[in-house]
Amino acid sequence: MRTYSLAVDGMGGDKAPKAIVEGVCRACAAGDLQILLTGDEAILETELAHFPKVRKYIEIIHAPQAIPMDAKPKEIFDKYPDSSMIKAAELVSQGLAEALISAGNTGALILASAQTIPRIRGVHRTALAAVYPTSNALERKDIFSLILDVGANIIVDRDHMIHFALMGNAYAQKVTGLERPLVGLLNMGSENNKGGPKYIEVNRILESLPQINFYGNIEGSDLMKGIVDVVVTEGFCGNIAVKTMEGVAEAAMGLGRLAFRKKLIWKLGMMMLSGGIRQVKKISDYQEYGGAPILGLEKLVLKCHGRSTPRAIDNAIKLAVKCTRDDLVSTMKSAINSFEQEFTRPDYDHITGFDT
Amino acid sequence: MRTYSLAVDGMGGDKAPKAIVEGVCRACAAGDLQILLTGDEAILETELAHFPKVRKYIEIIHAPQAIPMDAKPKEIFDKYPDSSMIKAAELVSQGLAEALISAGNTGALILASAQTIPRIRGVHRTALAAVYPTSNALERKDIFSLILDVGANIIVDRDHMIHFALMGNAYAQKVTGLERPLVGLLNMGSENNKGGPKYIEVNRILESLPQINFYGNIEGSDLMKGIVDVVVTEGFCGNIAVKTMEGVAEAAMGLGRLAFRKKLIWKLGMMMLSGGIRQVKKISDYQEYGGAPILGLEKLVLKCHGRSTPRAIDNAIKLAVKCTRDDLVSTMKSAINSFEQEFTRPDYDHITGFDT
Repeated sequence: MRTYSLAVDGMGGDKAPKAIVEGVCRACAAGDLQILLTGDEAILETELAHFPKVRKYIEIIHAPQAIPMDAKPKEIFDKYPDSSMIKAAELVSQGLAEALISAGNTGALILASAQTIPRIRGVHRTALAAVYPTSNALERKDIFSLILDVGANIIVDRDHMIHFALMGNAYAQKVTGLERPLVGLLNMGSENNKGGPKYIEVNRILESLPQINFYGNIEGSDLMKGIVDVVVTEGFCGNIAVKTMEGVAEAAMGLGRLAFRKKLIWKLGMMMLSGGIRQVKKISDYQEYGGAPILGLEKLVLKCHGRSTPRAIDNAIKLAVKCTRDDLVSTMKSAINSFEQEFTRPDYDHITGFDT
Repeated sequence: MRTYSLAVDGMGGDKAPKAIVEGVCRACAAGDLQILLTGDEAILETELAHFPKVRKYIEIIHAPQAIPMDAKPKEIFDKYPDSSMIKAAELVSQGLAEALISAGNTGALILASAQTIPRIRGVHRTALAAVYPTSNALERKDIFSLILDVGANIIVDRDHMIHFALMGNAYAQKVTGLERPLVGLLNMGSENNKGGPKYIEVNRILESLPQINFYGNIEGSDLMKGIVDVVVTEGFCGNIAVKTMEGVAEAAMGLGRLAFRKKLIWKLGMMMLSGGIRQVKKISDYQEYGGAPILGLEKLVLKCHGRSTPRAIDNAIKLAVKCTRDDLVSTMKSAINSFEQEFTRPDYDHITGFDT
């Protein structure tokens, strides 16, 4: 049995280190893991003492500092050079671990990874992808779609967006096992002349690429339907779109509570419905999924939710193992490489000088 | 009693002319209206025959063409010069009507208005605003917030965004009666250094303007909470944000139906809850609100939903009367004027040359 070596930031996240340690130990029950757990040695040792059976799969790598959830990303290398997160990124960059998992500060993780782990050749922008639940219009086994970038960058160039499409496509192939994932471009209209020159170009290039099963433009209202497997967007808008989805779901539940508090008959109705509501809730449960990948680097980095529970960490580790076993990074590299080599650039470069 | 003269596009919208005529006739019951209803004379006359009591308040302005809902906006002046929408815009620009109301093709209406009705002096970009229901975190009488721009433009310059803030502020003052509406800037993070140079500048200027009660940056997850009265954004992202909200609400209802179909006890629960659900639904009912204003022109233009019912049209007409009576356009003009005059431009112009 092959053993997978993963670096886990033991001190990142609202429930660290307790939830992280418990999640790591759950995952280790599978027996094919070597976890390099970074953080304060004494604290981690105490937590690990509760899980003697799997202790042998875990090596503590001492890092006395922890990056606060509200730290300014730019300051981390100056202020927290000995932090659990930077240490974990270094282990990956040194080849001691095959993937990095952290539930810590998102901006810090993007920066720590980008500054420590080399980018895939040809890629100039890493992307933070998010996995979100849909109402599964395509009726696939997997109800999740992938959207990228959701905030590693603000805006990017045309070619960076094509790279996002190629990387997202490779990720969806490997993680959901779809041979030809459907890829959509998030735009302000479905017609292919929408969104201004850059978006018109991106649409046209994606349409022309044989390696992409391009659906065309999709609109905000299509996101939750799940009519595509991969949504390509820029960080600014992607961030707003994903957070809007979260916010509406929360608000809907809040409104429900408000109305339902008012009358006894509604309360009774809610009680009868609780099974159904749990079922609906499960669909929107991010814990099921594990982590959001940072794509574009030579190694996989998974960002877990700040509120990650042991189950979320366990799932993220399983996801990292799957990606490592299926050699996701190599698939991305060859996708980017073949695009950069075969793509007849002059053909598309007649429109230049805009980035908006 | 003062009489308000409004131009109504009789042929715009999925349910035109029937729903439009009925809505107009409902509104006319108030007796203070002179409606210039544009469209095919014979068709409109037949519809109006059902409402003899209010017939005297309505004048048909013959326009033999109707702009299809899927027409390309750029082609309307060539292909549909005698359309009900362009005719209605002309009536307004000629001073024969004080506001324009249409449930037709959105892009066409923005273009028809912008090409026909003069812009407010100093304004270089009109904005399409949308009114959306929130869970009312501010606990105000009005549960709606205003967001602009949602698609009249793709991206705009810094100063255009300030104009959007000033116009949205004036609209919220007049329509919801708030003296100091809270204004937020939609961004990819709440900290004031987020979103790149243009957004940092817009944040700083809004913070400095005494006429704006600036909340600061808000995120996608804040939109539905209703923590501000006016949300400032650019057309591309605003469009995606608003459509995402619509899409999630739809998806949530679909998921609910799915779960609830499965078990008898859930079905019973749903029946008991139907009153509560109606109440929740009412909050997200766009008909209540009337129309989405196109701001920046010398006259008010209201875009009603394509699926507008008679009630929606009735509400839009009431809204137009309110805005006309309270002299919304003058308030906007003086806000823009005072900003353009008093704002010490050199102070802010040290960063130039970017538009992203």
